[in-house]
Amino acid sequence: MSGWLVIAGLGPGDPRMITPEVTAALNEATDIVGYIPYVRRIAPRAGLVLHESDNRVELDRARHALAMAAAGRRVTVVSSGDPGVFAMASAVFEALETGPQAWRDLDIRVLPGVTAMLAAAARAGAPLGHDFCVINLSDNLKPWDLIARRLRLAVEADFAIALYNPRSKARPEGFARTLDILRECCEPGRVLVFARAVSTPDEELTVVSLSDARPEMADMRTVVLVGSSATRVIRRGGAPIVYTPRSVLA
Amino acid sequence: MSGWLVIAGLGPGDPRMITPEVTAALNEATDIVGYIPYVRRIAPRAGLVLHESDNRVELDRARHALAMAAAGRRVTVVSSGDPGVFAMASAVFEALETGPQAWRDLDIRVLPGVTAMLAAAARAGAPLGHDFCVINLSDNLKPWDLIARRLRLAVEADFAIALYNPRSKARPEGFARTLDILRECCEPGRVLVFARAVSTPDEELTVVSLSDARPEMADMRTVVLVGSSATRVIRRGGAPIVYTPRSVLA
Repeated sequence: MSGWLVIAGLGPGDPRMITPEVTAALNEATDIVGYIPYVRRIAPRAGLVLHESDNRVELDRARHALAMAAAGRRVTVVSSGDPGVFAMASAVFEALETGPQAWRDLDIRVLPGVTAMLAAAARAGAPLGHDFCVINLSDNLKPWDLIARRLRLAVEADFAIALYNPRSKARPEGFARTLDILRECCEPGRVLVFARAVSTPDEELTVVSLSDARPEMADMRTVVLVGSSATRVIRRGGAPIVYTPRSVLA
Repeated sequence: MSGWLVIAGLGPGDPRMITPEVTAALNEATDIVGYIPYVRRIAPRAGLVLHESDNRVELDRARHALAMAAAGRRVTVVSSGDPGVFAMASAVFEALETGPQAWRDLDIRVLPGVTAMLAAAARAGAPLGHDFCVINLSDNLKPWDLIARRLRLAVEADFAIALYNPRSKARPEGFARTLDILRECCEPGRVLVFARAVSTPDEELTVVSLSDARPEMADMRTVVLVGSSATRVIRRGGAPIVYTPRSVLA
């Protein structure tokens, strides 16, 4: 019996966005490890042990998963979206690097998934259709000054910007400061998409100009997409379409 | 009979990375439209019309797909990876915006997929585990000066960087210039991952330091991931693991 560790992305919520290779890893696992709401997305079955843990204990969770795999279990660590984008893959490798040497011989695989910004962009049209950047607004793990600096440089580079974790109860003011920085650097008509809980029953999509954006439009379940200066809105009967053209003229 | 248009991402190559909602859209289509190698990934069946077209005719292809949907066909436009990342979604919306007003009433959906950088990152470990940016190095559609400017600002922001379309026969020199810019701005030990044809039989993964990177390590089927200054390499018996830690200390 030889154990393995898979770090798998469950996509944004809709089970029809889970890739077949992730489904197979869930079916072959003896143990599922993850943050409570993600583990609750897995159907229980005989012989499968579900290990739920709370937010902000990612390193402990990673060590637990590695130790079980080293003991011969078949362990799937689940993340929402893609495990490599602000999710469990980095935490597992941090734990691996600082853990017992034997862990480095483990069979470890990362299985990609549809990360939140791609699902959000698809619902809105194609706002990330040209060069873009991706910034986690949570300042739990990095100083606010670095976030502010990256936002200013991203606008200077004229990237579209995907903002993860814009706002939480513990950090109600960070997203207001983000909007202040965007207002300093961008024209008032810059297009923003607030994409909440995409592909779940709670999905909400709001397209606004920067001048109409308000901090309370975002919460923990929202990804915010900020257009580049070239991003366009097509008005029509239904929801507007937001897209960034492929070309920039010289 | 009412037509629709779906713009679907086929993922990086392995059919086990195609989401079930994309598979459903392929099964329900009367017509599949796309660049030759992507359409060849679709199994023929009775009643399904396959429309292959060459590279660089994206707008014509998009208009053809829209016109067929407007005539009542069920049309799935296929892209590799995710259709919203340097792929067909933006081209379809460009065609929609400049086309007949009636096209705006069409039932159009974008179905996300696993884009090449996520598959490449998963194979390497978690190099995109912190803030990052995504730049298309093809200068068919934008001036080289803008690419150079974005590269410098991306390094200044200390983003990890995913580079799409690094090199083609028509533009052999662009990636050499990219490496020159990185060498000006980054330390020689900066980590690069050359990920070629991930999840296909031709997959190759090469991890090198910037000082050892050479232009010919990339071709049209390669995504290049450039680490941030914090990106780390874990050495072990098998392939090394490349990851970017979640935290930046103040």
